[in-house]
Amino acid sequence: MSYDLSLKEIRQARERIAPYVRRTPIAPAPLAHDDVPGTLRLKLENLQVSGSFKARGAFNNLLQATPEQQARGVLVGSGGNHGLAIAYAATRLGIPATVILPTTASADRAGRIASWGATVVRFGENPSETLAYVAERAASEGLLNVHPFDAQWTVQGTATLGLELLEDVPDVDCLLIAIGGGGLIGGMSAAIKQTRSDVRIIGVEPRGASKMRQSLDAGVVVELAEVRTIADTLAPRYVSPRTLFLTQRYVDDVVLVDDSDMLAAMRWLWRECNQLVEPAGAAVIAALQSHAVNIEGSKRPVALICGGNAPAESVFASFQPRTI
Amino acid sequence: MSYDLSLKEIRQARERIAPYVRRTPIAPAPLAHDDVPGTLRLKLENLQVSGSFKARGAFNNLLQATPEQQARGVLVGSGGNHGLAIAYAATRLGIPATVILPTTASADRAGRIASWGATVVRFGENPSETLAYVAERAASEGLLNVHPFDAQWTVQGTATLGLELLEDVPDVDCLLIAIGGGGLIGGMSAAIKQTRSDVRIIGVEPRGASKMRQSLDAGVVVELAEVRTIADTLAPRYVSPRTLFLTQRYVDDVVLVDDSDMLAAMRWLWRECNQLVEPAGAAVIAALQSHAVNIEGSKRPVALICGGNAPAESVFASFQPRTI
Repeated sequence: MSYDLSLKEIRQARERIAPYVRRTPIAPAPLAHDDVPGTLRLKLENLQVSGSFKARGAFNNLLQATPEQQARGVLVGSGGNHGLAIAYAATRLGIPATVILPTTASADRAGRIASWGATVVRFGENPSETLAYVAERAASEGLLNVHPFDAQWTVQGTATLGLELLEDVPDVDCLLIAIGGGGLIGGMSAAIKQTRSDVRIIGVEPRGASKMRQSLDAGVVVELAEVRTIADTLAPRYVSPRTLFLTQRYVDDVVLVDDSDMLAAMRWLWRECNQLVEPAGAAVIAALQSHAVNIEGSKRPVALICGGNAPAESVFASFQPRTI
Repeated sequence: MSYDLSLKEIRQARERIAPYVRRTPIAPAPLAHDDVPGTLRLKLENLQVSGSFKARGAFNNLLQATPEQQARGVLVGSGGNHGLAIAYAATRLGIPATVILPTTASADRAGRIASWGATVVRFGENPSETLAYVAERAASEGLLNVHPFDAQWTVQGTATLGLELLEDVPDVDCLLIAIGGGGLIGGMSAAIKQTRSDVRIIGVEPRGASKMRQSLDAGVVVELAEVRTIADTLAPRYVSPRTLFLTQRYVDDVVLVDDSDMLAAMRWLWRECNQLVEPAGAAVIAALQSHAVNIEGSKRPVALICGGNAPAESVFASFQPRTI
């Protein structure tokens, strides 16, 4: 079977999810400094509903489920943005949702999921334990279980972001995208390269979670023994044959960044643009500032800010009324 | 003398500052809940350079200073967004800048000012002590001292945001704006009402810093004995004859919100839009959610998110690499 995506199915997905997702803005220039190219544009997908691009795949899955599946409900396991996106999409569509979080998931994420009306259950010391439990429970209860990146409907959804970007910045010639499981870069790149084959697309991974880089080098999916990074949403231990296929076919290069670079880039996005993002959302800026990638030849580069779900609870707790 | 602003001078200011400020985006709909009107649009001025609308007045002042003043430099005292804006604008224009901060100012603000190349000095236990010191030092050293709200060039600058909003949302029929010293609402309202007199404009103040509400009721500027609020950038103890004049002339009503409402609105903006803002930036949402204002008759309401400089340092400090 082929894992490829046609422009036709991507356009259909875009029409399907349009009433429910946001067309996210391009950050307005200018910037004070020259520590990134002055021509760089930021696509602020952190403003997407549920705080990341994952909402696109979530809606595309739930909207194509059968009426019986929709009535019975959806069950997902995720300590990250997929769980948030499914919870949000299910609420909007009136579908019962249960999200299983690892016991280590932050209060910020759990609170947000609960605020959207999904049932939150905590199970498992790590993502693997959680996912094994979810798979078993979904099968035994006959509930829909949506994979975070390895599913055709999921990458159809993320691919819609590629079509949107081509309309936002028609003369884009270089695009930087972070890689978790590879669904985002796979879908977006398929949409873009089948329309504008001259756009250079660069993937960015944490050095401590370089599953796509290693899989590209080996030519097959490589499962990492462990991952270690501050970027929890870029930290699966493996990509899938589907996302490796799309990356081999449509992506020009994959580069690595250190945690310290992502943290510096997060501070930069806050200081220069007042956008508080998670480490994954800053990885593409980190790649530029650490010189992991050279885009000097590019006239119209775009960095995709893929998600913004940082743990901000401490900020709210810091406000106390005071006499001034 | 009249404190009024002509559309001509506002248009000139807009042209003057255009190369240096951002045209900020309207937050994309949709929202999951009906806890604000579904038709509400948010103008995300927290994405402005320096993190607030203050950059508009800062550039408009510094660009009109004489070459001698520009060469000698600018000195301002501010624990808030005015200091950030002057520091940013001075850097961009190559003007030496010194910002005097009260000793209570957050590390977040001090760090951001320093990152833009301004000299940071700490003096004074409270804003009044700081401002007295600044006035004396500016006079003795012959430095330009830009007032945060009570100056024609400052309100010209903030008024440009009114023209921009009318282009962003041409059919706006109701606008909510937070009030600190009144320069923002005065300038914006002058621009809007002289173009579209049918737009309803509502000001929002903290209950613990109700200097404009009390001044409107008294018909003269009322100085508060003390202010007490979490919204430090809405906390001057008085407005000015200029900003009271503009508010009397162009603003329909001023309503009050509690600190707890602003905190709830900050959490809402974070959860629903991934925008981390300061309390002032959330005051307009607080007014809606607390029912301090009723906009049921409005077809196209807009809430101005005026600033985003929340103390986010604790978030960055929370990231530690971990094995997943």
